[in-house]
Formats: sequence, C-alpha cells, structure tokens
Amino acid sequence: MNRSTSLYAAIDLGSNSFHMLVVREVAGTIQTLSRIKRKVRLAAGLDKHNRLSADAMQRGWQCLRLFAEHLQDIPAAHVRVVATATLRLATNADDFMTTARQILGCDIQVISGEEEARLIYQGVAHTTGGSDERLVVDIGGGSTELIVGRGAQALELYSLEMGCVTWLERWFNDRSLTKENFEQAEQAAREMIRPVVSSLLARGWQICVGASGTVQAIQEIMVAQGMDEQITLSKLLQLKQRAINCGKLEELEIEGLTLDRALVFPSGLSILLAVFHELGVKSMTLAGGALREGILYGMLDLPVCEDIRERTLANLQRRYQLDTDQAERVSQLAEDLARQVAHSWQLDYRCFALLHCASMIHEIGLSIDIKHAPQHAAYLVRHTDLPGFTPAQQKLIATLLQNQSHPIDLVQLNHQNSLPPAMAHRLCRLLRLAIIFASRRRSDTLPEVTLRAQDDTLQVIVPEGWLSAHPLRAEYLEQESQWQSYVHWPLLIIEAGPAPVSA
Amino acid sequence: MNRSTSLYAAIDLGSNSFHMLVVREVAGTIQTLSRIKRKVRLAAGLDKHNRLSADAMQRGWQCLRLFAEHLQDIPAAHVRVVATATLRLATNADDFMTTARQILGCDIQVISGEEEARLIYQGVAHTTGGSDERLVVDIGGGSTELIVGRGAQALELYSLEMGCVTWLERWFNDRSLTKENFEQAEQAAREMIRPVVSSLLARGWQICVGASGTVQAIQEIMVAQGMDEQITLSKLLQLKQRAINCGKLEELEIEGLTLDRALVFPSGLSILLAVFHELGVKSMTLAGGALREGILYGMLDLPVCEDIRERTLANLQRRYQLDTDQAERVSQLAEDLARQVAHSWQLDYRCFALLHCASMIHEIGLSIDIKHAPQHAAYLVRHTDLPGFTPAQQKLIATLLQNQSHPIDLVQLNHQNSLPPAMAHRLCRLLRLAIIFASRRRSDTLPEVTLRAQDDTLQVIVPEGWLSAHPLRAEYLEQESQWQSYVHWPLLIIEAGPAPVSA
Repeated sequence: MNRSTSLYAAIDLGSNSFHMLVVREVAGTIQTLSRIKRKVRLAAGLDKHNRLSADAMQRGWQCLRLFAEHLQDIPAAHVRVVATATLRLATNADDFMTTARQILGCDIQVISGEEEARLIYQGVAHTTGGSDERLVVDIGGGSTELIVGRGAQALELYSLEMGCVTWLERWFNDRSLTKENFEQAEQAAREMIRPVVSSLLARGWQICVGASGTVQAIQEIMVAQGMDEQITLSKLLQLKQRAINCGKLEELEIEGLTLDRALVFPSGLSILLAVFHELGVKSMTLAGGALREGILYGMLDLPVCEDIRERTLANLQRRYQLDTDQAERVSQLAEDLARQVAHSWQLDYRCFALLHCASMIHEIGLSIDIKHAPQHAAYLVRHTDLPGFTPAQQKLIATLLQNQSHPIDLVQLNHQNSLPPAMAHRLCRLLRLAIIFASRRRSDTLPEVTLRAQDDTLQVIVPEGWLSAHPLRAEYLEQESQWQSYVHWPLLIIEAGPAPVSA
Repeated sequence: MNRSTSLYAAIDLGSNSFHMLVVREVAGTIQTLSRIKRKVRLAAGLDKHNRLSADAMQRGWQCLRLFAEHLQDIPAAHVRVVATATLRLATNADDFMTTARQILGCDIQVISGEEEARLIYQGVAHTTGGSDERLVVDIGGGSTELIVGRGAQALELYSLEMGCVTWLERWFNDRSLTKENFEQAEQAAREMIRPVVSSLLARGWQICVGASGTVQAIQEIMVAQGMDEQITLSKLLQLKQRAINCGKLEELEIEGLTLDRALVFPSGLSILLAVFHELGVKSMTLAGGALREGILYGMLDLPVCEDIRERTLANLQRRYQLDTDQAERVSQLAEDLARQVAHSWQLDYRCFALLHCASMIHEIGLSIDIKHAPQHAAYLVRHTDLPGFTPAQQKLIATLLQNQSHPIDLVQLNHQNSLPPAMAHRLCRLLRLAIIFASRRRSDTLPEVTLRAQDDTLQVIVPEGWLSAHPLRAEYLEQESQWQSYVHWPLLIIEAGPAPVSA
C-alpha cells in the first residue's frame, strides 16, 4: 500500500543543475523532506549547432536514475517535472527526453520561456513579502526571466536567451576577469534586455525581487561582510571591481562567496548589472522561492495570500499552539506604546511592522520550555523557513525575541542588518514593556500607560496608586528599569500625581 | 471577560521557599507559563516552642501579594494552594493563614504529611520513567517523605519531621562542616527513619527516585563533573568528604553546586545518606516532578500512563506533526538490525529502549527546517521538558539525533553520561543505517538486510543486484561508508552472492 499520499515532488532539469524537491503537506503548509541537487552542467554540453553531447546526456540520465528511485513512491499526480532553456534549445533534445522519460517513469515537460516565467512568478508570489507590485528577475543557467506582476497575477512575462552558464562560455571563455570581458558581457546582456524595457517600465513596480543563484550569492556575500540586505547598483559595481582585482576566475575570492557559486558568479553579475542599468533598478532583495516553489504551490493549489507575512505568522501560531489572544494583546499594546514615542524616536512604518511581527510570535519559545524561552524563540525564528521575511528581517525578529526579557545583549541587537542599532534598541524596549504590562493575560488588567521619550531616556507613567496595587508587575518594572540601566537606557517608572486643580 | 480558562496554578508554601507554578493546558499536555519562587525561609522563623516569628510571617505575606496579582486571572477551580511542614507545626499558624487567605483571595490547605506524600507520589508517577515499582524520597525544608508505590498507587506513605532547613538549624548550627556534625545529623536522621524501614522494605521496589533540591543539587554536581547520573552511596560519601574538606559552610565549594543550593546542601546530604544506609538503596535517579506536579495533574485529572516515555514520544510526534508511519518504520528496522548484532556488540535492553526512542522522533528537526535538521532535532530534544527521561537519557537521544546523518561528531557521542561511548557509537551506526534504508518511506521498499559485526567492523549485506537497482540508496550507503570510515568505523556494503549450489 502506498501511504505517501501527502508527498509532492517538483523536479527541474535546468541548464546548470538538476534539482529534485520532495515536500510533505502538513496542515496547509509545506515541509521540505528532501532536496537533491546535481551539477549536471547540461548547457556546457551544447555545441555551436546546439547539439547536446553524448557525455552531457549521460550525466543527465545518471542523475535522473537517482531521482527515479525516490520518485516511485510519490503518486503520479503529485509529481511535476519540467525542463528549461538547454532542452528548449537542443536540436537533439528528443534523444535525451525519450530515455529520460523511461528512467523517471513519468512525463517531462519542456516548458516554454513564458511558462517558466509564469511559474517563477508564482513561486515568488507565494513566498515573498513586501509590496505585491513587483519586478521579478531570475537569472538561470541558460535563460533569464523578467516579470512584472501584481499579487497573484503576472502581467508582463519575458524569458531571454542568456544565462550565467551561457554567458560564462561566451564572454569569460578565457577565464579572465578583465574589465573588457565584463564590459562585453554586460553590453551583450543590455542588448538582450533593451527590447522588453519599455513594456516592463510601462507597468511599473514598487519592489524588485531577485530569484537565482547569483542573487543568492550576492546576499551571502553581503551578510558575510555585515552589510544590509538591499542589493544596490553601487554594491554590484564594488563586487565587479573586487572580481576584476582577482584577475582570473580560478583566483576569484570574495568573503562570503562559496566555491560552488564562484564559477558562474562573474557572468551572473554582469547580467544583473545589465538589468539594474536598463531597468533603472534602485534596490533588490532575495525572493523566498522561484521555479520549484511555483510548481509545488501550483500542484497543491494553495491560494496566493494577500499578505505572506501574516500567513507565516498565523501558521507559526497554529503549529506551536500559541496563545493568540495574548499575542494580539502584546502586539496592540506595543503598537500603542510605539505610537506615543514615534515622533521623538523617529519610528517609521518598518519599525511598526517588525514590532508587530515580533509580538505575534513572542511566546514561541515556551513551546520548548519556559527555561531559556527567549533563547528558544530566537532559535526557532532564526532557523525556520519564514516565507515573506528576508533573512535580515528574520534575524532582527529573532534578536528582539531573544531580548524580550532578562538582561539585554546589546551586541546582538547591534549585530543585525535590518535596522540601525538605535532603532532596534527602541523596538526592544517597547516590546519588553508591552510584555510586562500584559503579563496577566487579560486585557482588563492593562493600565493606562503614558510614555515620554527624550533621546534615550524613557518615562513610563502609570496611574496614581497603580504600583502598590500591582506588586508583581511593580517588581517586574523595577527589575526592568535595572536591566535597561545596565545597557545605559534610562527608564523611569513614574506614578501620575493627583489631577491638577483646574484654573 | 476572563479568557484564561486553560490556565492552572499550583502554589506550595514550603518551609524553605514559596513556589507558584502557572501552566497552560495545550492538547492534553502541560506547558509552563511562569514559575515564581521566593526564598521565604519560613522554617527559620520557628522558635523552640514552634511559634512563627512576626518577621517570617511578613516575608510570607509579602511573597503572597506577588502571587495574588497573577492568581486573580485564573479560575478558582484551577488553583490549589497547599502549605506543608512549617505551617503544620507552627502553633500560631492560624494567625498567618487568616491574612494569607485574605491576600490570595482563595483557600489554602495545610495538608497532612500523608497527603503531602500522596501528592508527591502522584507528581513522580506522572513524570518519571523506568519501572513503576518505586521508592520515592523527597527531602523538603521541614519534612522528608518516603513512599513506596506501584504505578499510580502509593502503597506506603511516610512523612518524617526532618528537613534540610530544620537539620541545618539543629546539627550545623555552628556552620562547621565537621565529621562530627555530619555524624550527628546522619545518626539523628537514621533514628527518624528506622521505625518505618521494615514496612517500606516489605513492599520492595525496582527503582529509587529522589525528588528534592538536595537530589537536584547532586545531579547538577555529577553532570558538571562528567559522571553518570546514578546517585550511589560511594558518590554521596565522596561528596561528604569534599564538604568536610571545605571546613565551614560559607567556604563550601564543589564544582557544579550553585550558591542558592549550598546553604542546605550538607544537611540535605546527611539525610540522604541516612536514607541510603537505612533502606539499603543501591542507586537513585532524579524524579521529573513532585509536589507541585502532583497538585497540577490532580486538578487536570489526567490518568497516570502505563509508560510515561511512550506518552512523551507520542506527544512530541503529535505536537510536531511527525510522519508516524516513518518513525515506526525506522524504529522497527533499527530494532531488527540491532537484534542481528546484539550478541557480538553486547547490546542490552537499555540500548534497545534508547534506539527505539531516538527512532520515534528522529525527524523532529524537519519541523524547523530541512537545512541542519539533525542539529535542530538535537536542540529540541536537549531543551524540551521530556517527562519520563532522565537528563542523561535526554542528552544521549539528542546526541544520536544530531548524528543521524552527515559526518559524525565523535566528541559529542563520547561526551554523554548515559551509555559507555562504544555503545553510543553502535546505536548511532544502527540508527543511521535504518534511516538510509527506510528513506523511501515505504515498507515494501525495504530490502532484506543482514548485518555482521566483529568488533568495530560492520558488514551490511544486501540482496544480489540490489545496489544497481537502487542507485539513490546505493549512493547514500557509499557516502555513509566514507563518513563512518572517517571516524574509524569500518563499514562494508556487500551484495550477497548467488545462492551456493547445494551439496
């Protein structure tokens, strides 16, 4: 009996690598069970007449035999296999495909560039937060997709015949990282992009999201070097200069760049530079998913959410059986406190959004144990796949949760690249106060609290007589005032005096 | 509206400390929300006529005011407050209790020694693994309970009027850690115990479980010093000698002994020594809970399980939505493999039990992310409260899960105090193989596997032709053989030859 009916597999036969992703559907969310990747380098096996070499075919079939063993156990309706650029191009693709289908024992679709772009957009829409008016850029091994969409809808779809493998072979053939090679690669890419610029620009977008190994590599470099996670033109130009300074591809060494990404990094970078120039991109972040996620969400037939982050938070609350009333209570109180000091502390919409997210899951560590619960919360948030959140946001939320009570670790709050340290400090203080005031888990026990902030000095004003009537929370506040003072955050707990006599 | 109907509180007014434990019932399990403890030292306020001093009363009331603030939000039927030895003894207990009840706004029961023993036994029965024929020893501040029970049933219950606070005041009054003081304290304790020895011995027991700060302190010392977790007479005698070498109570320093436990450690130790001598106890482990847990489980009206560990494993499977079929599959396969080498590898019943437990939750890390899933599994197991498992068992399971795949960390496997390192290595090897063979999540894809072990060399024999027909698992096994070779565990993957021609 086949019991594995909750399993799904998405396979893509890309120009650089073949990937198999096997997931399990758990209560409407996707849990990854295995992820197998083999660098088949199919595109490198194309000759100038676009004939795939026998060697390249063998490498592909060998990989598919591995996939096939696992695939047998998954219902056919839960498997989708797609092939992209190289197999679109290869004049002898049929030779490869006939044997490939026999090995896998299921159909393989060679999808059009447009279909690829559509699936990539779906994968991004299901997994990426921020505004839903987006430009999506995916630089593959043999093709580059450019899509503009709104919400679940892709409005303009382009698939261009250039990729980091083909551009490597064409423009860095001598393995030199010269200014000239970069220049030529970039110019050629700009020429590929130019015909589609006006229709993409005509749609417009609020955010730009990158989904590919190149963008992933740049993210990793920026994190390793302690930069914030926005990819900008000036950062790309710096990286290009760093690469040129290395001289040769085999000597390419940049802090944070891993060996397996290095080979196609310069070629991918030149395509990305072309995209930034031609489309006037100001900044880009990393997508939470792309082609394979698009395939999976399509099979699972899950709707695209209005707000990916809220869905992610709700999923976490459900999976860890959090007290949602308490989460809501702390979130609202934190927001109320933040509003009172928003002006003097210059809190912007990002601060409010992050404070809300941290509040909604602040008790997640209790699911492990009350002992070190803040540390457990941080661990879970740091390591769980959180669709809709960028790595830097995830890290900031983890850091806020780790510092939600007990002594404060300033180094952690400073060592994140989502907000300036002073902002992170302020969110931390507000979250801690909200948690203390809400500690009785009843909205009718929340006092009227007035906050006044001047630089780092924060006054917390509670009603007259409140402290002596609430000795437990009074003790918590006194302790909190000490903890904040240790990190030089003056916190004054004050009872309001009697109402002044009116004139 | 009071929404907190899933909250429960257990408060005990002990002779040394007052404790409040607030929990939330989540799907039949208990999640601790807050734990407040204040060292009220009530027993120290008793004069020789057993009158409680005004100061001690004030300390008690002050603490209850803190508790009261939180208690208001919990339904009265979900709160139970008990007072023990000192308030049983104090001739003016009523004076204290009248005000105490007013402060808390709910009833406080001064429970008899027998009721205290009964609740302690229930707390142990709900939270402690191993045989269910047990002797339970709880050394409190003002009383010591000795109970023999079977399963949910306490058969012999004794509460003796000695505790680590009263014994401190009586026998270590000069704060000297002399041989004489220990001798006198121990002799006095033995005299207290002697009258109940015969009826306890008549019932008999399989295991001895200790539930108190003294036993906890000894556990912490043993863990800090890298010893195994069985408390034995020889270890207690060593600790006594270490204490005597320190000379004075204020100079007491033993690696792993925390400051807040040090004051009542020598007096508690002398009582424990008396118990070991009088009852002929061979070894003792730490209970998972005691009085407060007994109160809580009583209010929640949960049945005592036949097998606490199985309940804990099933709870984890449910909470983390594990694939229970796969857990069962790996567990059975691991057991089957273990049986084949049980003789040559000297695997005993403990090994089988631990291998089973690790198998049943080996995928728990996937709930966080497939990336570093073994590390996440270890983190969860290391930090979650797992009723029925001793700290050392918990650590071993965490270590097995951390090493369930990928390169092996021998240091971790050696740095646990539940099994000899060689045994832990062998369990690790069996678990890893079971996971590989079961990786297709279908029982009908498991081959007949024969294991042969000679010292550390392990032969894995699969049917003829199996490897080439199953390239994915063949690749996994080849990789596994390499990983095991890195830590000098020879692993040979062999296909059975054709059946020999019969003579």
